[in-house]
Amino acid sequence: MRTHLCGRVTENELDSEVTLCGWVNRRRDHGGVIFVDLRDHAGLVQVVFDPDREEVFARAEQLRTEYVIRMTGRVRRRPEGTENPDLPTGAVEILGLELEVLNAAKTPPFPLDDEDVGEDTRLRYRYMDLRRPLMQQRLRLRAQVSAAMRRFLEEREFLDLETPMLTKATPEGARDYLVPSRTHPGSFFALPQSPQLFKQLLMMSGMDRYYQITRCFRDEDLRADRQPEFTQLDMEMAFVDEADVMEVTEGLIRHLFREVQGVELPDPFPRMAYAEAMARFGSDKPDLRIPLEFTELTEVMQAVEFKVFNGPANDPEGRVAALRVPGGAKLTRKEIDVYTEYVGRYGAKGLAYIKVNDPTDLAGGLQSPILKFLPEDVTRQILEKTAAAAGDLIFFGADKASVVNEAIGALRVKIGHDLELVEAGWQPLWVVDFPMFEYDDQDKRLYALHHPFTAPAVDSPEALRANPREALSRAYDMVLNGTEVGGGSIRIHNPEMQQAAFEALGIGEEEAREKFGFLLDALNFGAPPHGGLAFGLDRLVMLMSGAHSIRDVMAFPKTQTAACLLTDAPAPVGEKQLRELGIRLRPSATQQAE
Amino acid sequence: MRTHLCGRVTENELDSEVTLCGWVNRRRDHGGVIFVDLRDHAGLVQVVFDPDREEVFARAEQLRTEYVIRMTGRVRRRPEGTENPDLPTGAVEILGLELEVLNAAKTPPFPLDDEDVGEDTRLRYRYMDLRRPLMQQRLRLRAQVSAAMRRFLEEREFLDLETPMLTKATPEGARDYLVPSRTHPGSFFALPQSPQLFKQLLMMSGMDRYYQITRCFRDEDLRADRQPEFTQLDMEMAFVDEADVMEVTEGLIRHLFREVQGVELPDPFPRMAYAEAMARFGSDKPDLRIPLEFTELTEVMQAVEFKVFNGPANDPEGRVAALRVPGGAKLTRKEIDVYTEYVGRYGAKGLAYIKVNDPTDLAGGLQSPILKFLPEDVTRQILEKTAAAAGDLIFFGADKASVVNEAIGALRVKIGHDLELVEAGWQPLWVVDFPMFEYDDQDKRLYALHHPFTAPAVDSPEALRANPREALSRAYDMVLNGTEVGGGSIRIHNPEMQQAAFEALGIGEEEAREKFGFLLDALNFGAPPHGGLAFGLDRLVMLMSGAHSIRDVMAFPKTQTAACLLTDAPAPVGEKQLRELGIRLRPSATQQAE
Repeated sequence: MRTHLCGRVTENELDSEVTLCGWVNRRRDHGGVIFVDLRDHAGLVQVVFDPDREEVFARAEQLRTEYVIRMTGRVRRRPEGTENPDLPTGAVEILGLELEVLNAAKTPPFPLDDEDVGEDTRLRYRYMDLRRPLMQQRLRLRAQVSAAMRRFLEEREFLDLETPMLTKATPEGARDYLVPSRTHPGSFFALPQSPQLFKQLLMMSGMDRYYQITRCFRDEDLRADRQPEFTQLDMEMAFVDEADVMEVTEGLIRHLFREVQGVELPDPFPRMAYAEAMARFGSDKPDLRIPLEFTELTEVMQAVEFKVFNGPANDPEGRVAALRVPGGAKLTRKEIDVYTEYVGRYGAKGLAYIKVNDPTDLAGGLQSPILKFLPEDVTRQILEKTAAAAGDLIFFGADKASVVNEAIGALRVKIGHDLELVEAGWQPLWVVDFPMFEYDDQDKRLYALHHPFTAPAVDSPEALRANPREALSRAYDMVLNGTEVGGGSIRIHNPEMQQAAFEALGIGEEEAREKFGFLLDALNFGAPPHGGLAFGLDRLVMLMSGAHSIRDVMAFPKTQTAACLLTDAPAPVGEKQLRELGIRLRPSATQQAE
Repeated sequence: MRTHLCGRVTENELDSEVTLCGWVNRRRDHGGVIFVDLRDHAGLVQVVFDPDREEVFARAEQLRTEYVIRMTGRVRRRPEGTENPDLPTGAVEILGLELEVLNAAKTPPFPLDDEDVGEDTRLRYRYMDLRRPLMQQRLRLRAQVSAAMRRFLEEREFLDLETPMLTKATPEGARDYLVPSRTHPGSFFALPQSPQLFKQLLMMSGMDRYYQITRCFRDEDLRADRQPEFTQLDMEMAFVDEADVMEVTEGLIRHLFREVQGVELPDPFPRMAYAEAMARFGSDKPDLRIPLEFTELTEVMQAVEFKVFNGPANDPEGRVAALRVPGGAKLTRKEIDVYTEYVGRYGAKGLAYIKVNDPTDLAGGLQSPILKFLPEDVTRQILEKTAAAAGDLIFFGADKASVVNEAIGALRVKIGHDLELVEAGWQPLWVVDFPMFEYDDQDKRLYALHHPFTAPAVDSPEALRANPREALSRAYDMVLNGTEVGGGSIRIHNPEMQQAAFEALGIGEEEAREKFGFLLDALNFGAPPHGGLAFGLDRLVMLMSGAHSIRDVMAFPKTQTAACLLTDAPAPVGEKQLRELGIRLRPSATQQAE
């Protein structure tokens, strides 16, 4: 239907006839002549309809924004002074000779070049929103990224293998999406939260190296930037240790940045133990672009009389830490109040601080409501340990360690951005040496920090049983600019070790048999050592494209309440369908659906 | 953990030390020496443990089938006369110097080289079944096929775009799998039967060329070779007509066969109208490798007195057709009985035949129970029209055309195989000029032969409204050796035409609005002409690999009752989960689940 793409007509086509298809991006009438910016996925080109050519001109007069047309015309140089150097096609224009309206268009629900359209409107008319060049670019980048991933992995003999979507519920995970079975009434499939067990089974199947770019599902309450369905690059390798997996996967990310972004990432990526990351940044995914670090003050504060500090300092689960903000002394009382409110969201009960005007003058060089509670010696230690300089401000967190880490960790990131301290570029990081388990105070039991199939860094099932809370795991997370883009581990391949891990999680032999019998069986029939990793494709592409939400790198995302505004999914279904599935609505649901 | 792959150790490695990981495929003790065939995904290699090396020999004595080991040894030439020319590694063996058992294995549930294991056992222990070289090959072929598809399409600027899995129910399709929504109780998502509407929306989003290799779901009663979830290569292009889509997609298939199979397919693929395919082969996916064709006898039989023939011949929906089987006169009465029973399964009430011993001798040269009912003139016409020769057999079908087509069409294929008439090689075919709709006698309404978004081959909505039953569609199916491997169409891009198509299907304006409002909206905001196609990846790979079932080219398929024998999915779920989803089981389902 066309000889060229709009965005690719250049001086090479001068004086030749071209046939183009596309959308009317804009129509202007100027000096009796009609100018149309014609748009396709490749870009814009200017088409001119001259009143001398009456028939085609009359047709052009009917054109409106977003009409779909097919036109034939002669390429000519634009008159001097009217070139548009911002467009690849900006040196030429096309004199319209023939014009066919392929489809009319109602007035668009919003102008495509309006950048302030509400997200609900964008999602409802997603097919309009996606016509914008920025959205086109993002989805193109996404396709480039997955293509580059595939090529890299296939060159290294990873096999693209598919695993089921209709599968078994995941105990010990997030909430599953369920699918009622018609052929087995009363039973349900679950949509996979990840292909974890299947990829392990593929290693036990002798597949050696597996990858898949696949959809995963989690029925969680959608926080900030989660989606009920998301895409994962999932990988697994047999006969490997941590170093092998990390080498291949960081190589993959380096390759992507080189190929798609033209950026060279460090080789190898730096590594940091979980304990160090928590100590220095209060986070297991520290953004190393932000040059702010925690200073540990727990010991220093053990002897002070100030209860706000000595309580947490003497609590085995407590922590007192400082965050020195260079140049922070210029923060106003009001700004500090805002930060106080901010850390409150993470559970901090206050936000103590010291403004440092002159660190050598303990009497008059400091400003702080808490100074009076601290002995001079302690104040001096604070200044020394934080290496505070004139003009700095020191924030304090004192609470359960988890609260301090979350609150001051978040404050660190926020202040880093507010004060424009964030360094440019990309800061990848491996976080390693995670604990195997974390203890949940409420449930009074251990939970797996990664998942129950992660191998512990101990030699024997006995060693794990002896001290599960101290055991580290063979897991690794890849962090990029403070976002976890991937995570994985070496898995347990020994059936007894798997049993010991289940025990630590309070899963008895019978329950393990019921839920994971097939895995335990498989481990008994010759399972090789194996490990892998999964990348969050949406997040990775979001970072690479500079978008602020994963919704902006998905063609048809859902809202925060897990609804599709475009198609109005989910929707009520007929009684007959429910009957076939052996289910009925509860009365409350019936009401809500009506 | 290893320096080489088992299957790749050759004379190049002679005298060097290698470290291998793999499974014990077989252990033999011979002349005091232990021989182990060690297996990984790359193949087998022979390892020898010598009793002189006591420690490693003692360890080797513990090895059993499917143990996972790591070993280091020296590569040496096999003693003369013991080489195995069938193995790439067959010229060498490895003298074991070190040996580590990475994992023991219980006695396998079946020997890996047993070819007669029941499918249920294979599926239950799929991780064992997949270790067989044949299954490894098939999944590797599958990965090669999808990789080759992607590369071909990406070179042609097709964008790999993802569409939702949690989406809206598909009216007018097969039965949907439903997913109850927790955040919208009483409402349900549906898993996609195909991304049909989303890919059309992507064209309306200006994406120009889309592809995706994606999972699709149909909750059908599983016939012969269907799976509840299957994989589709889905494609769509804007600003194209039938010829464009067919050129790209047959080019893709030619490319696949060239790259992956080393086979050259015809260029272009032959085309055949639906009407011709039904007339000549009784099928819209004829296997052209079988050199048997229908002979139309409907007119000839209108005047005979034999009711079996003149009834259907005079029924507007009836058909009488013959199938000449060259050399078929040698079929015994018993064999013919078997075929009679076979066509009975397709609804045929009998299977008349004439054995042709001498076609020139109408009196004595023919054998048939029906001869006496046919005037000589008609018999002569039958012989002439079928061009029967001595030694042939002519079968007859006389019934509703649909029954004749199904029964004699199936007979044609069966006899073709039974008499070994099937020509070697690959016979691709485009079937085109389908009717838009077919009339369902029971429901007394039209159904779309493809789907309601397929463009009719008429100029205007009025023309479609005037005579919907006669309208042809702009659909095309790709058939390969009698299997439909792909199908597609040019879609409706005009909102009024879409409305007319809905009307023909008995979908009123209000219902259309409710079910497809978003599509109708999108058609109104500047939809380009577009069309596409979808390939069934499982079926295509099945054909290419020579497997007899799509289950053999899927890693973890489900059974005929849509269950996973490996993981025991689907399974009952807890009351709490159902409550969260606003559903409960019907009493009958509760019973069955227990």
